[in-house]
Amino acid sequence: VPRLLRDLGEHAWIARLTERLAAQRADRRVLVGPGDDAAVIRSGRRPLVLTTDALVEDVHFRRAWLTPSDLGRRAFAVNASDIAAMGARPTVALLAIETPPRYRAADLDALVGGFTAAARRDGATLVGGNLSSGPHLAITVALLGEADGRVVTRAGARPGDAVYITGALGRTGTAVRRLLAGGRGRLPPLPDRVRAGRLLAGVAHAMIDVSDGLVQDLGHVCRASGVAADVTLDDVPVSASCRAALGSEAAAFAAGAGEDYELLFTVPPRREAALARLAPRLGCPITRIGRIGRGRPVVRIDGAVPSAALRAGFDHFRARRSRV
Amino acid sequence: VPRLLRDLGEHAWIARLTERLAAQRADRRVLVGPGDDAAVIRSGRRPLVLTTDALVEDVHFRRAWLTPSDLGRRAFAVNASDIAAMGARPTVALLAIETPPRYRAADLDALVGGFTAAARRDGATLVGGNLSSGPHLAITVALLGEADGRVVTRAGARPGDAVYITGALGRTGTAVRRLLAGGRGRLPPLPDRVRAGRLLAGVAHAMIDVSDGLVQDLGHVCRASGVAADVTLDDVPVSASCRAALGSEAAAFAAGAGEDYELLFTVPPRREAALARLAPRLGCPITRIGRIGRGRPVVRIDGAVPSAALRAGFDHFRARRSRV
Repeated sequence: VPRLLRDLGEHAWIARLTERLAAQRADRRVLVGPGDDAAVIRSGRRPLVLTTDALVEDVHFRRAWLTPSDLGRRAFAVNASDIAAMGARPTVALLAIETPPRYRAADLDALVGGFTAAARRDGATLVGGNLSSGPHLAITVALLGEADGRVVTRAGARPGDAVYITGALGRTGTAVRRLLAGGRGRLPPLPDRVRAGRLLAGVAHAMIDVSDGLVQDLGHVCRASGVAADVTLDDVPVSASCRAALGSEAAAFAAGAGEDYELLFTVPPRREAALARLAPRLGCPITRIGRIGRGRPVVRIDGAVPSAALRAGFDHFRARRSRV
Repeated sequence: VPRLLRDLGEHAWIARLTERLAAQRADRRVLVGPGDDAAVIRSGRRPLVLTTDALVEDVHFRRAWLTPSDLGRRAFAVNASDIAAMGARPTVALLAIETPPRYRAADLDALVGGFTAAARRDGATLVGGNLSSGPHLAITVALLGEADGRVVTRAGARPGDAVYITGALGRTGTAVRRLLAGGRGRLPPLPDRVRAGRLLAGVAHAMIDVSDGLVQDLGHVCRASGVAADVTLDDVPVSASCRAALGSEAAAFAAGAGEDYELLFTVPPRREAALARLAPRLGCPITRIGRIGRGRPVVRIDGAVPSAALRAGFDHFRARRSRV
């Protein structure tokens, strides 16, 4: 019986592929290969950072949940978040769009307009793209960035590091929950953590953006770094909308919800004073939520391994229901 | 009444967007922006060349027409062709895949395997990617390249230049014609013109890869360069399969067929001797098929403006039938 992607799962397939690619003959230009938020290439004076991410209709969004302009902004933002998580800043973008022939030209203009506005805000330029017909909207972005100094991978966390997060969690998840229940409204805009990421690169041992959910993404850091992590649920910053909607369940929901695109990072104790001095310039609050420890790669919440659902995060191919 | 993409057309929408993007505040890093085969960015010692292209199921291919491995090879090849058309060589690739959950994991492995094998052959490395579920297969690639010396755009053709093409035309078109008529078989592999493109960069005024069809793509060169072009139909090199299938109609069919991914380039008379000396090292035949002239941007075949169908090339959104 052939194994379908649905049975194997997205994360398992990607992990297997990443191992296989790592085993190939090394390319000396590649400083960070597949498996991190972005790849890093030796190029000229500064390391070149590259990422690609897609927004697929009825997987990552429904058309009624976003204006075309906001969809364009979001397509840029989810990619900029990967660049920010390396401590780099976006420079140039490629935008590939699949769209049904019956899509309005004015909506496509607005989508590209939202994308270029978000890019400009971060100092990046749209330099090329592709347009194809297809049965649904799908936006695939390739974003390049530049690091001023060192890049921060998922792999640098050390026992004793404090675990921090920018902003608050649960905002997107709460909106999706309301929309799926038939509520009206739009997806909230995503945070822009490019400035924060560049500054944090000076003090962080490891960094990742929270796209799959706090538990899942901290798990990626633990596996890449060969460490364990302990999180105190009461310390997890929860968005006001999530708190209002879920009350006493809010923190647990926020710890599992994805697509908040905040930065999760670890800092050694000797640099926490420097972090405190940086804090006013980050453009967002930061909160200490836990500690890195020795041992096998596992994330504990209040001392216990969380439920399988929290651990697994979202998987495109195994999800009982579609992501949206 | 809103204008739909179907009514406006892919090429018209892209042309309008390209104009709008060109009018934006200039980014000094961008040497060649949207509208050419690839963008060119100032980066370190050598210009960085970037392109993105997608293969969408039931638009660019049907699943029965290609093995998964050949689909991966083709996804790399259509992008490498854009890099080659700038006179550059591919260096690093990003691979974004949309696939139905019921796709076999082994087929996805083979697809990525074909992609990395084609990349390796050209000295390029897969450094990152994305995997999403979706209703159909769609493969979106971002490919970076490096130019050793100058890059060749569509915009350099001058009156008096000779028009040349690598290889032969009509191979893919003939196969698609047979497959659409219910014939058995596969799409033929695409040519690899990376080596040829790098060598031709030393002598060519303008270069483009033939993806939409000879008439359409030579038209792109004429518009970008502000020149006219005359092609002699008898001189157009036609693939053996096209000749066998279409007999006396073969050359006209080949001149309109797309997806041959040969290089079309113009060379000033004073460099034709240098071109002849290069020819044995290109790895493929080259054929002189016409001449660049003064006047408004138009392509004439045997002295006449070709039919609207030949001129228009393939447009995803206006096509009476889907591309495949």
